[in-house]
Amino acid sequence: MNRSIYLENRRRHLAERLNGRSIIIPSGSGAARNFPANQYAYRASSHFLYLVGEPISDSYLTFDGKAWTLSVPPPSDDDALWHGPAESCTALEHRLGLPVMTHDESTWDTASLVLPSMHSGTNDKLASVLGRPIHAGVVDPVDVELARAMVKQRSVHDGLAVEELKAAAEATAAAHHAAQAIIEPGLSCHEVWAAMQYEFTRRGMKAAYQPIITPHGEILHAHSLDEVLQDGDLVLIDVGAETASGWAGDVTRTWPVSGTLSPTQKDIMDVVYAAQQSAIDVIRPGVDYQEVHFTACRALAGGLVDLGILTGEPEGLVEQDVHALFMPHGTGHLIGLDVHDMEDLGALPGYPDGRMPSPRFGLCYLRLSRSLDAGMAVTVEPGFYQVPHLLRGSQLSQRVHQSVNWDRLEMFRDVRGIRIEDDVLVTPSGPSILSSECPSAEPKK
Amino acid sequence: MNRSIYLENRRRHLAERLNGRSIIIPSGSGAARNFPANQYAYRASSHFLYLVGEPISDSYLTFDGKAWTLSVPPPSDDDALWHGPAESCTALEHRLGLPVMTHDESTWDTASLVLPSMHSGTNDKLASVLGRPIHAGVVDPVDVELARAMVKQRSVHDGLAVEELKAAAEATAAAHHAAQAIIEPGLSCHEVWAAMQYEFTRRGMKAAYQPIITPHGEILHAHSLDEVLQDGDLVLIDVGAETASGWAGDVTRTWPVSGTLSPTQKDIMDVVYAAQQSAIDVIRPGVDYQEVHFTACRALAGGLVDLGILTGEPEGLVEQDVHALFMPHGTGHLIGLDVHDMEDLGALPGYPDGRMPSPRFGLCYLRLSRSLDAGMAVTVEPGFYQVPHLLRGSQLSQRVHQSVNWDRLEMFRDVRGIRIEDDVLVTPSGPSILSSECPSAEPKK
Repeated sequence: MNRSIYLENRRRHLAERLNGRSIIIPSGSGAARNFPANQYAYRASSHFLYLVGEPISDSYLTFDGKAWTLSVPPPSDDDALWHGPAESCTALEHRLGLPVMTHDESTWDTASLVLPSMHSGTNDKLASVLGRPIHAGVVDPVDVELARAMVKQRSVHDGLAVEELKAAAEATAAAHHAAQAIIEPGLSCHEVWAAMQYEFTRRGMKAAYQPIITPHGEILHAHSLDEVLQDGDLVLIDVGAETASGWAGDVTRTWPVSGTLSPTQKDIMDVVYAAQQSAIDVIRPGVDYQEVHFTACRALAGGLVDLGILTGEPEGLVEQDVHALFMPHGTGHLIGLDVHDMEDLGALPGYPDGRMPSPRFGLCYLRLSRSLDAGMAVTVEPGFYQVPHLLRGSQLSQRVHQSVNWDRLEMFRDVRGIRIEDDVLVTPSGPSILSSECPSAEPKK
Repeated sequence: MNRSIYLENRRRHLAERLNGRSIIIPSGSGAARNFPANQYAYRASSHFLYLVGEPISDSYLTFDGKAWTLSVPPPSDDDALWHGPAESCTALEHRLGLPVMTHDESTWDTASLVLPSMHSGTNDKLASVLGRPIHAGVVDPVDVELARAMVKQRSVHDGLAVEELKAAAEATAAAHHAAQAIIEPGLSCHEVWAAMQYEFTRRGMKAAYQPIITPHGEILHAHSLDEVLQDGDLVLIDVGAETASGWAGDVTRTWPVSGTLSPTQKDIMDVVYAAQQSAIDVIRPGVDYQEVHFTACRALAGGLVDLGILTGEPEGLVEQDVHALFMPHGTGHLIGLDVHDMEDLGALPGYPDGRMPSPRFGLCYLRLSRSLDAGMAVTVEPGFYQVPHLLRGSQLSQRVHQSVNWDRLEMFRDVRGIRIEDDVLVTPSGPSILSSECPSAEPKK
């Protein structure tokens, strides 16, 4: 099936879900970096990319109850000089298989449902046309029906989406192999990122999110690359590619800088790896992702009991959130056109059935709590971290103080942070690892 | 003189220029890419970087008529977990040599003058504090005095600025050497950019602007990298580095993909190179940049007369804008913390004396028309382009039709676009080329 038929099907299905309601999906616009003409690389709205297949700045995909139309900016002589002649509407129509007109030829149904882009340019224009505020990252109650329909549809990936996710995973794998090949004491994290980014850029891809490459794995989102790798360190690398049409990869590996894990590092790496494997193993249609999360947590707690760091039964330890002292984040999230897929729609994609994120520590960071369907893609990314302010004096550490053998834990002080993350497609027969070409995370015997 | 003394001097001089008026300079904030938590790499306001020396998100540098203070976001437990413990105000004070407090401890003078950042986050907050609108890229009339003072000061680079500009030029040179080393038929522009970007990233730097790497030099800002280089093509590469503290490089080279210029390509390259050299040669304090521009234009016109493409006297051809048929843009612009320095303040930096950009075609794109002072840095970037819609049927081409030998021009059809650009510091004794370590643009004999 060719690309344009997939895209046509996506548009038709979305329209059917909305029973003829009018729809406007803005593509978003460029965002100024340090002055108006110097912009960040344009990134289109994922909803627009999902339905149109490519980024076309300052455009609007509209459905008027009967047909889809793309409305694009009218060309100007200035544009032709600086940016080259604009593709004609006819050429664009032919390429996209979709009627195309310029904004001045377009009519807008003011009753349309909207999914805001992240950029004020297209949102503000839309707000003035529709006569109501359109804010980035906010779903207006009148648009919830469209948001729910989009979540239902984008949660389950079609063949074209799976192909794109595999391309993102392939580039992500190349980058992680490039990193693994050069890690050594004395290397700066900038050097590691340069080698990984090279693999993305040469493929016409970008990073799906700001890279994390750090010997301070205990800082969950450590974006500084200023550190220099030292002998004895672990370096945590959380880096994923984004394809030209916007699909994401998201993979984490943690490597010993010296090339060899210390015995204590090996012990914890075994535990985290086993936690990831056991969580992946339970993935199949009908399973709730919360159960995937708790499976990882119980495996982590069990492994730490075996190492003498925790005392008690895994099940009971997890019920008391003791595992969250070492793994405060959730086991994973949806992945698709966004690395946290559809997070611009808030909690709706991860908690679609009226559930609410739990206030429990640890569980409050779980981004996904819903029954899995075939065609969904999720990350599985357990970790072990020694976060100083969590271990020392936090409410949680005080409450569960008796469950930890603190003297034993002290022996593992050379493990600041480990995370292992892969991208997994839910298939009717179980999990299929999208990121299987990445370097194996299994600790060496 | 150490870094913090330079920064202290900058702040003191700016305050003196404003005679005790209160000032607030927001640093700007992160901008969402495809969902709120997935942001573009944060780029601080250049005015903030100029006065503080490093990017500190969501902060405000304030002067209350007596002293400068930095106001930073209060730390949260969540931040500590995800982003690591925030540096204490005391540690930051010590490092920056500047009093630091958190927003909740700060008092704000509502009569303060402001230079907006590019990001709505800090601007909106400031607007609510000051009770007046603060818009990115717009200088409110009440703030013009501050904008003028900042332009005066940032136009003339101090020793620290020159050091940073040299570091940007050095990385820019490394990238252009990397490109030159791999250019060959069959290579994609993505591959070229990957090799250049690698040089920036490993140094902890970024691109100062979206790269232009294209066989379609006739499109002045061709940002697509999807083209594959072909034998016989020229590839135009306009790429510059930005240092970690924000200073820019901006260099263009145009190479024959095969390694050898055709005779016609060599002829035009000689003309563009000579135009650049003659323009650089007139640079010194007291010279108006408009004269630098016209020097390049006359040299270009003269060279094209010598090649038989134009007929007439260079001076007269330039007066009639005939050169603009082949070089529609200005010869250069200020460079500093922004690649088009201070362009967030509109025309003020390039046209500070109440001059206005000319409506004449070609001259309307000249970003700089002012007397040069020692310490200023400018680009010199003449070019030759065959822009189809300019050459065929534009008002200009009709008006100057008789000055062009169109048959002769047809022989140069393998030259779509050439630009040669370097960064030049104005010194008391004349021009000093900041980008002198870049590969020589002089055509081979």
